Amino acid sequence: MKLITISREFGSGGREFGKRLADILGYDYYDREIITSIAENKGFSADYVENSLENRSSYMLHYGTTFINTQLDVRTELLIEEKRVLDAIAKQGRNAVIVGRNADVILEEYKPFTIFVCADREAKIERCMSREKGALTRREIIANIRRIDKSRARTRALMTGSDWGDAHSYDVTINTTDKDIKELAKAVARFLSDK
Amino acid sequence: MKLITISREFGSGGREFGKRLADILGYDYYDREIITSIAENKGFSADYVENSLENRSSYMLHYGTTFINTQLDVRTELLIEEKRVLDAIAKQGRNAVIVGRNADVILEEYKPFTIFVCADREAKIERCMSREKGALTRREIIANIRRIDKSRARTRALMTGSDWGDAHSYDVTINTTDKDIKELAKAVARFLSDK
Repeated sequence: MKLITISREFGSGGREFGKRLADILGYDYYDREIITSIAENKGFSADYVENSLENRSSYMLHYGTTFINTQLDVRTELLIEEKRVLDAIAKQGRNAVIVGRNADVILEEYKPFTIFVCADREAKIERCMSREKGALTRREIIANIRRIDKSRARTRALMTGSDWGDAHSYDVTINTTDKDIKELAKAVARFLSDK
Repeated sequence: MKLITISREFGSGGREFGKRLADILGYDYYDREIITSIAENKGFSADYVENSLENRSSYMLHYGTTFINTQLDVRTELLIEEKRVLDAIAKQGRNAVIVGRNADVILEEYKPFTIFVCADREAKIERCMSREKGALTRREIIANIRRIDKSRARTRALMTGSDWGDAHSYDVTINTTDKDIKELAKAVARFLSDK
């Protein structure tokens, strides 16, 4: 069995890259499916699970310590469920690409091949702008990139000593700036092909 | 023409990786040759050129300001000559792998494919220990890694706004920890193969 984990900066195209890589390699692909499983198992909505895990709740500050503690409890519970879901995926013994969810850290014992996908700030803003098709302003997108990546870094810091986004924490780091994601996925598939 | 530049942490195996990659691809390979050219053109010894460019001179502190200024003048002169030598290599129009010498920055206009090679601290120490075969102590090797990488980062900072070793500054970053350099070079050759 081969597991490939993709961690990525928000807006870098890491999800598209991971999906294409899985398609080319004929591997299973996991991304939103993990959130959906956690939500079903715990009886929450997928949005609530995603927001809690990514620490996006904007109303936390308004409700004082009790609310924050409850939030932290829920978050810990969700992280434990996340580990259970990821373990179950790995135990199937099938080749898989897993995007996000700190799968590189959580599934360390299965020795996944770990990829980090990054891009220049301007490239990420442009990618988000074209994805949002005007639904968010440039300013909102910049704030999103900052907040989500900060949250990803913080979540990883809770789990491990190694740094999110530091090339030493991954086998390979790929910069998508000025690159075609489709061609990059093909190139990495060749890299991994063992021939 | 394709140019591939390899920047690397001291002890990461980046030089061996670059040499093997050039061999597999059938590209020209440049590394020490650049130092030798600069030395010949300027009438210095190769060791002196290398030490000056890597800012290794340990006696600088003993001679006061005048000596330091002279050193800086020589260093600037050598950097200019380095650019001249690298430009001449690029202008030949032949496929080449160039290790070190900030070729990624200096040859930016030729749009090289830029690779950074890193490794975990312990992996780098072990690689250096086995290379030095007891000629240096573990402590001396650790000091070397720190000093040389610091100097590389500083030299790059003089030339460009982007950070040495930051994955955003390169197309691909490769972590050699627990990896076989020969297999990695083969894999990257496949990555680059365009098929």
